[in-house]
Amino acid sequence: MQTELSKKLGAEHAIFGFTPFPAVAAALTRAGGFGVLGAVRYGASEELKRDLDWMESHTDGLPYGLDVVMPAKKVEGVTEADVEAMIPEGHRQYVHDTLATYNVPEMPEGETGGWRITGWMESVARSQLDTAFEYPVKLLANALGSPPADVIERAHRHDIPVAALAGSALHAQRHKEAGIDIVVAQGYEAGGHTGEIASMVLTPEVVRAVDPLPVLSAGGIGSGEQIAAALALGAQGAWLGSLWLTTTEADLHSRALTRKLLAAGAGDTVRSRALTGKPARQLRTAWTDAWDSPEGPGTLPMPLQGLLVADANSRIQRHEVEPLLGTPVGQIVGSMNSERSVQSVVDDLTRTFDAAITRLNHIATHTP
Amino acid sequence: MQTELSKKLGAEHAIFGFTPFPAVAAALTRAGGFGVLGAVRYGASEELKRDLDWMESHTDGLPYGLDVVMPAKKVEGVTEADVEAMIPEGHRQYVHDTLATYNVPEMPEGETGGWRITGWMESVARSQLDTAFEYPVKLLANALGSPPADVIERAHRHDIPVAALAGSALHAQRHKEAGIDIVVAQGYEAGGHTGEIASMVLTPEVVRAVDPLPVLSAGGIGSGEQIAAALALGAQGAWLGSLWLTTTEADLHSRALTRKLLAAGAGDTVRSRALTGKPARQLRTAWTDAWDSPEGPGTLPMPLQGLLVADANSRIQRHEVEPLLGTPVGQIVGSMNSERSVQSVVDDLTRTFDAAITRLNHIATHTP
Repeated sequence: MQTELSKKLGAEHAIFGFTPFPAVAAALTRAGGFGVLGAVRYGASEELKRDLDWMESHTDGLPYGLDVVMPAKKVEGVTEADVEAMIPEGHRQYVHDTLATYNVPEMPEGETGGWRITGWMESVARSQLDTAFEYPVKLLANALGSPPADVIERAHRHDIPVAALAGSALHAQRHKEAGIDIVVAQGYEAGGHTGEIASMVLTPEVVRAVDPLPVLSAGGIGSGEQIAAALALGAQGAWLGSLWLTTTEADLHSRALTRKLLAAGAGDTVRSRALTGKPARQLRTAWTDAWDSPEGPGTLPMPLQGLLVADANSRIQRHEVEPLLGTPVGQIVGSMNSERSVQSVVDDLTRTFDAAITRLNHIATHTP
Repeated sequence: MQTELSKKLGAEHAIFGFTPFPAVAAALTRAGGFGVLGAVRYGASEELKRDLDWMESHTDGLPYGLDVVMPAKKVEGVTEADVEAMIPEGHRQYVHDTLATYNVPEMPEGETGGWRITGWMESVARSQLDTAFEYPVKLLANALGSPPADVIERAHRHDIPVAALAGSALHAQRHKEAGIDIVVAQGYEAGGHTGEIASMVLTPEVVRAVDPLPVLSAGGIGSGEQIAAALALGAQGAWLGSLWLTTTEADLHSRALTRKLLAAGAGDTVRSRALTGKPARQLRTAWTDAWDSPEGPGTLPMPLQGLLVADANSRIQRHEVEPLLGTPVGQIVGSMNSERSVQSVVDDLTRTFDAAITRLNHIATHTP
């Protein structure tokens, strides 16, 4: 399964996988796909450097990419403390009360929450980029709009194509105008930040809007049939994120969360602002219900909401408080029913892709 | 483009079209597809009889179907007046005030609103069925759950397969248990009543859930690429509704509404309870905004909401009050940008389907 784009990037299969886990990204690359490591969880360059070194020694010279979060608009001189100060007291109280309702313990002495807002800040993203450009990454993706013009130029000087996510044709067109090389059309059914338009409609709209740029289809893809569908819609590859969460290489740090993912159905996700302040699809939990409830104070805008709930989420995850325990994931979670290796998942994807093509050909060539 | 199902039903292409307009249904059947006439707008059997006579003389012996609305649960002895009496005065006032805000005139003297609740009532649906069985209809579809067991049996005695819409795998499984022959998997992006799960995820889930029953994929389909995607997902055909609204054979009775459909983008629809009390995707208008607004009284459950707004909708449509003027339609409305004949639409669907298959084969057989 090779498209012009996957060929250009040096991958055997047009299967792109976004993941925060180096072991998953490397395994996908080794299996003939294209692993893209999410950098948002790295606060310091040293950690990113350590994991990119690891990637280098576990990908056999095969291609992989890096995903950073970098807003195009600069916000000068704003510190985390400035953002903290903008959070209303009532919202802090609601976090406190909700955690109390479910008896969520404090973090153990000496442990701190994993996620900080820093990964979302431009200074951090820029120092990540300085690090990334020291490695032979083959794709730079940006999860939050087009990156600033100078970053695109810098990537192009290193011969690295830049990809950006879009939830509408208009959004995709802006990426094209900004000099982006590849657009990831992220449908309504996807995990994480996503718009209202489903992949079936969005993918061909984005393909038309940015022609001749290549488009990857994201959202709702967890089988070879769905990859075939995405390619039929004009995409040059599939961008999968959720599917890797239940692979044996993924490190969710919580067996309870893995069990929840394996048990969830397609109807068990919700597009909620609870996590970041912007609509992001995730497991529906008592926590998302609390934020989406008309009786609650409602969510705050990005980046306030993320900062507001960061410590709470760390506590929920650390203590595996089941009713509140969640993660970004797409509607495809309904078909994630067993833990398997990345290689075995890729084998299944290519096998069911081939079967779908055979079936389609039978339909297309059949004369009544 | 022929599947086992389309072959069995005698259609050249696996393109099923749901439409309230006999001229569209007949034109689709003549073009090699399978036209399905929606019966919900027929109050009396005589009108249905007249249009089925017309269908008979305009389909050259080729196959077509009929779609009725028949709830499986019987509600004995409830009249329209009983339902009317359940509507709160505040809701009536809100209809009155909203119409007044937009200066919507009364219906002209002697004219009445088109839609009544009667088409939704079992007695009416049953008299429609008595009529339908006098004609050689080749498919009976039910838009509202599984029809009652005796109706399924009666259809089977006439050798007519029965189709039912489903928005989830569980819903589809219930259809199978009820003896349904074909399941229409209706995705989130579809026009009309629809669930939360997008076609990319829903179609294969339903295919698995009802195996070996054939599945039609509905929602987000308006091109041959999208038909190819639906078939890649395991469907035995595509069920299209929205696309026909802007064909030259469609009779919307409102040029303003046609213009609105041609101008709308994929983001201009909303899944709202404004029309019937259940979530149905439709053009987003000042009318749907009024019902979805937290400042309004909210919508009533089905069938109260439909009865509450029926006359208002007739007035809005009769006088083409643009800000309020809407219709059920799917996200595919963004690609409905010109008025064309049904034949020309079908030609495009088969041409772009073939092109998608060619492109897919190129990708599948390419060795790196």
